[in-house]
Amino acid sequence: MSSSKIKNDLFLRALQGETVERPPVWMMRQAGRYLPDFMKLKEKYPFFERVQNPELATEITVMPIDQVGVDTAILFSDILVIPQAMNCEVEMVPGRGPVIPNPIRSLSDVEKLITPPAEESLDYVMNAIVHTKDALANRVPLIGFAGSPWTILCYMVEGHGSKDFSTAKGFCFSQPKAAHLLLQKITDMTIDYLKAKVKAGCDVIQVFDSWGGLLSPEDYNTWSLPYMRQIAQAIKPHVPVILFGKGCWYALNDFSEAGASAIGVDWTLSPEKARGIVGPDVVLQGNFDPSKLLSPIPVIEAEVKKMIDGFGPQRYIANLGHGILPNIPVDHAKAFVNAVKQYSA
Amino acid sequence: MSSSKIKNDLFLRALQGETVERPPVWMMRQAGRYLPDFMKLKEKYPFFERVQNPELATEITVMPIDQVGVDTAILFSDILVIPQAMNCEVEMVPGRGPVIPNPIRSLSDVEKLITPPAEESLDYVMNAIVHTKDALANRVPLIGFAGSPWTILCYMVEGHGSKDFSTAKGFCFSQPKAAHLLLQKITDMTIDYLKAKVKAGCDVIQVFDSWGGLLSPEDYNTWSLPYMRQIAQAIKPHVPVILFGKGCWYALNDFSEAGASAIGVDWTLSPEKARGIVGPDVVLQGNFDPSKLLSPIPVIEAEVKKMIDGFGPQRYIANLGHGILPNIPVDHAKAFVNAVKQYSA
Repeated sequence: MSSSKIKNDLFLRALQGETVERPPVWMMRQAGRYLPDFMKLKEKYPFFERVQNPELATEITVMPIDQVGVDTAILFSDILVIPQAMNCEVEMVPGRGPVIPNPIRSLSDVEKLITPPAEESLDYVMNAIVHTKDALANRVPLIGFAGSPWTILCYMVEGHGSKDFSTAKGFCFSQPKAAHLLLQKITDMTIDYLKAKVKAGCDVIQVFDSWGGLLSPEDYNTWSLPYMRQIAQAIKPHVPVILFGKGCWYALNDFSEAGASAIGVDWTLSPEKARGIVGPDVVLQGNFDPSKLLSPIPVIEAEVKKMIDGFGPQRYIANLGHGILPNIPVDHAKAFVNAVKQYSA
Repeated sequence: MSSSKIKNDLFLRALQGETVERPPVWMMRQAGRYLPDFMKLKEKYPFFERVQNPELATEITVMPIDQVGVDTAILFSDILVIPQAMNCEVEMVPGRGPVIPNPIRSLSDVEKLITPPAEESLDYVMNAIVHTKDALANRVPLIGFAGSPWTILCYMVEGHGSKDFSTAKGFCFSQPKAAHLLLQKITDMTIDYLKAKVKAGCDVIQVFDSWGGLLSPEDYNTWSLPYMRQIAQAIKPHVPVILFGKGCWYALNDFSEAGASAIGVDWTLSPEKARGIVGPDVVLQGNFDPSKLLSPIPVIEAEVKKMIDGFGPQRYIANLGHGILPNIPVDHAKAFVNAVKQYSA
């Protein structure tokens, strides 16, 4: 780990459970559409060109460090590079989101998927990491991320975004053997991918279970948690691992037991309740409602203080409860970050 | 109330907290796209014609009583008849869902909305109720429904369906005065509407807060709960009121205190946990994952038994945790209903 050389290592120290001078702060999707400079690149280059070109990925990744002042970078990429590497085509259709032209619907579809070494099949990600680490010059750490196997399955089977992913769920409930084989293949590919990302220079890994909250607590234990656990166990000997499940308020203790260094929380759980569930020793991350950044700046400042008071300023990483929205004014995002930096109990 | 004359009054007795021989059962969206006879009408008549024509609304409402064997009817209608009556145009665009061509974005937009007497402005709903009660001939009760004021606001401000309704939330956070005025106008219109529905013959009212789960617990107490409470208080002297908030697991006790006769639960809360939160005396309704109806029939039967065991067979109404999906085979829906009817502890 290169953490000892990083100048602003607040985020890493908080992840290790150390007592810190203030909570570190970053924002999910911090390199996103609310930044005018991001929009310029978005208009010029298609989505996967921005992901695959190391210079572009670096420029986007570093943008919020310079422009918003967050305490860590997170590599600009996409969770669906995993199906692409497994030979399942993914297109990004402007205005519609990801589309999988040939979705997975049977055991034989699953059996045809490959799990090639990530260092070769996703070499452009590793190149982007090396390039980004150079550009960061040890100012802040770099997070690498992956989708949870359940969330990746949702897209691979449904074939596109959905509010309920009922085709994907139906696939699990009607063809459980094929579904578990698919989840295991995604898990194997993801572990290899994340190990390669750490080797290339990522200081921290976050796993996003964006669609975990569509499952009942019992189904979560069947279809998502065991695979998140495999990933956490494989990666945590190397770098800290943050587990985040959107809508998975019922799984916080499970994430902790699975080996998470920190646990992401969304805003459907109050800070006090989240802290009450896991106790004082577990590092939590979250949970500002992204829409609330549309409030007037004094309201944002007051709400940030209330949030930190609720979680407590130690063993806590300030963040949003989900990705920042495209319609957030940049000065509101900065107000959020600055309110954390100026926090005093 | 006409309940004393209804032959199958199991649902009404359960709502009144009486000890019953088995849990009553119905399904949200039970008159829906999974029924081939519904699809024939859907192909022949546009959405709002089906809603506005009393003969069509009656035919659709009665369908699942005859074809699936549920213990109550629920009037075929739409939550967005309320904005229509308030002079806010709503179109139903096939494949896209509801579209509001001129969404509400300012205090002056809100001030222009009207709240005319529902008996006149929504007379077609009252006609459909009278017609449906005739067709039901007191076989089972009839539920009337409305959307929660928060959920109606989401559509009126956003202008269409959305996964986060961030424009609607931004409207509340940046223009709270206008948002509260809008919510109060919707509430006033809804109370008048539901009173007229009861007068026309509805035996039970359910309020759907489909988008309540997008709010934090604290914001729920600001933007949704107070208006749900006004509705429950106004209607419960007349008929039982069921409050259902999708994703609102944190509000069960609040719903109970607001005066709900029963509380709907989705599948993100286990039956045991839901029962544990509200205690043995509160009537709960739910919470089968609609996607789980894609499981093989023996699995559906086993899961239904487990669900009823979890809630306990008294003070409980068997239902799904959200609307039935279009891709559910009819015999799977019947298996769900029959498994409840055959339940023994």
